[in-house]
Amino acid sequence: MTENVVTSDNFEHYLVSHPFIGKPENLYNAMNYIMQLGGKRMRPKFLLLAYKANGGNSDEQAMKLALSIETFHNFSLVHDDIMDNAPIRRGKKTVHEEWNMPTAILAGDNLLLQCYRLILETELPCSVELLKEFTAMSALVCDGQQMDMNLPNYETISEADYLKMIELKTAVLPACALKMGAMAAGASEKVAQQYYNFGLNIGMAFQLQDDFLDAFGAEAEIGKQEAGDIIENKRTILYLHAESTLPASECAELKEWMSYSPEQPQEKIERVRQLFKQAGSDSYLAEMKAGYEHNALQILNEVCTDAVYKQQFMLLFDFLKARNS
Amino acid sequence: MTENVVTSDNFEHYLVSHPFIGKPENLYNAMNYIMQLGGKRMRPKFLLLAYKANGGNSDEQAMKLALSIETFHNFSLVHDDIMDNAPIRRGKKTVHEEWNMPTAILAGDNLLLQCYRLILETELPCSVELLKEFTAMSALVCDGQQMDMNLPNYETISEADYLKMIELKTAVLPACALKMGAMAAGASEKVAQQYYNFGLNIGMAFQLQDDFLDAFGAEAEIGKQEAGDIIENKRTILYLHAESTLPASECAELKEWMSYSPEQPQEKIERVRQLFKQAGSDSYLAEMKAGYEHNALQILNEVCTDAVYKQQFMLLFDFLKARNS
Repeated sequence: MTENVVTSDNFEHYLVSHPFIGKPENLYNAMNYIMQLGGKRMRPKFLLLAYKANGGNSDEQAMKLALSIETFHNFSLVHDDIMDNAPIRRGKKTVHEEWNMPTAILAGDNLLLQCYRLILETELPCSVELLKEFTAMSALVCDGQQMDMNLPNYETISEADYLKMIELKTAVLPACALKMGAMAAGASEKVAQQYYNFGLNIGMAFQLQDDFLDAFGAEAEIGKQEAGDIIENKRTILYLHAESTLPASECAELKEWMSYSPEQPQEKIERVRQLFKQAGSDSYLAEMKAGYEHNALQILNEVCTDAVYKQQFMLLFDFLKARNS
Repeated sequence: MTENVVTSDNFEHYLVSHPFIGKPENLYNAMNYIMQLGGKRMRPKFLLLAYKANGGNSDEQAMKLALSIETFHNFSLVHDDIMDNAPIRRGKKTVHEEWNMPTAILAGDNLLLQCYRLILETELPCSVELLKEFTAMSALVCDGQQMDMNLPNYETISEADYLKMIELKTAVLPACALKMGAMAAGASEKVAQQYYNFGLNIGMAFQLQDDFLDAFGAEAEIGKQEAGDIIENKRTILYLHAESTLPASECAELKEWMSYSPEQPQEKIERVRQLFKQAGSDSYLAEMKAGYEHNALQILNEVCTDAVYKQQFMLLFDFLKARNS
């Protein structure tokens, strides 16, 4: 469906035709490798749409900003993959596996610097404001990643803790992308902030859908290890809801399953899924997700009155809602 | 001697009274830990002096820029220490040892973002230009660190390769600090570039002195493992010169020693030192260093005509020249 969005193919073409150039070659090869592994490119697409919807008319400047946002996303993937010791990303070796850990650290560092270079190169009158937004967002994403790593050490996690973590780790980036697109086109602070809030709600819905797919999706569908969060005893919103809802005996059983890692995880996965469903945690998550989607739509209706752009936002939005991977 | 420099104590006080604030606490504690481990603070001192020498009169703005430069230095230390697997920094545990590797990666990332926050907060008219300088310098430092990691894989290293590596890894940072100080005070591009060149020459001399001390300094003096570069078979300028200068048999012996790592390295260290001296590599390094110092002084004499500031630059400069650690 995304093919209908005017800017999609253009962005992929822009990305591929603007590799990062520098020496030593192995460093820049690593940076371009992760950038060109593919992905949905949702964040730059949202930025480009917000830019156009607000009357922006410089393709080159918008593309630079969009590339900056996609580059930031890839910076975070490279460093997160080191931290998670992940061997595979989008079906290919991660950067630290294909090269090595030091090169992956430097590739991430340099990708982050390229984001700034790109924003500075736009020479937009609001570039200082864009840089402030970008910098604040980036620090929040780091904070969110640290929170995510800290959560397993918490004795109890509240729903608020979990939602704050996914807000920082996942939702502020699309929010910032949309806001930067609007700002670059000259939108008012109020309108730009509405785009931010639109993106924040989309990001929250996106991450909750991710949690749902991780727990209930089949490996063939989701393209990664099935039920990874359950296998790794990750206390997502499904677990937190089930823990607070199940009768004492089932709650104890859930905690028991989610406190160790059997070599053959299939029985654990099936039983935990049953307990999530018994608790109604799948419906609880779906309702929560629908709430964020509802908020997102309401904000979009207020802020984007042009039928053509609204339809294009809806296509991206429906694509995200309908995704099963 | 540095006590004579008007701005030194002020900077340390500013740094300590402006810790980074945010959550989660462990992330910000790690960031503030490395910042407050001490150090000579040469880079921010150079920035502050260049600012004052060019008529800058906002202490707060200059301090923010100086803190940004010191923060960048600490970002690079945190990530380099992970890459080098270094356990100790300034006599204390490195960040990845005191916390863990993922937190050290994120602490570094967030320190880099704090540099941008600080520069943006100055709200200087030239802040976009400052950010461009800073971003270009930062990418070069990453390139230099990657070059340093690549050199052991080179069959042969030219003197030019080695000098380029230390220029990027070490010298562009003080150069950029001085240029940013001058720019922030409103100096012309020409004057700012002279400060850059002054810093570049100081940085080269500094690194060559580092290489000399590493090879010939006693552990008690240099405060770290004696002859670390020799033990690790690092092909510094001393090695490169000796290799190209020694008669065939001694050259073969040097290569032999520098191709393995005996458990008891004392004999290796002593013999390699002898070979360096036989080749005159110590004098060669000293002359090269003197050349950079001469260039630095010549540029300083041209660009800084105020006797008071020139004297303060000289104090910092003499401090660097005279250091034995």
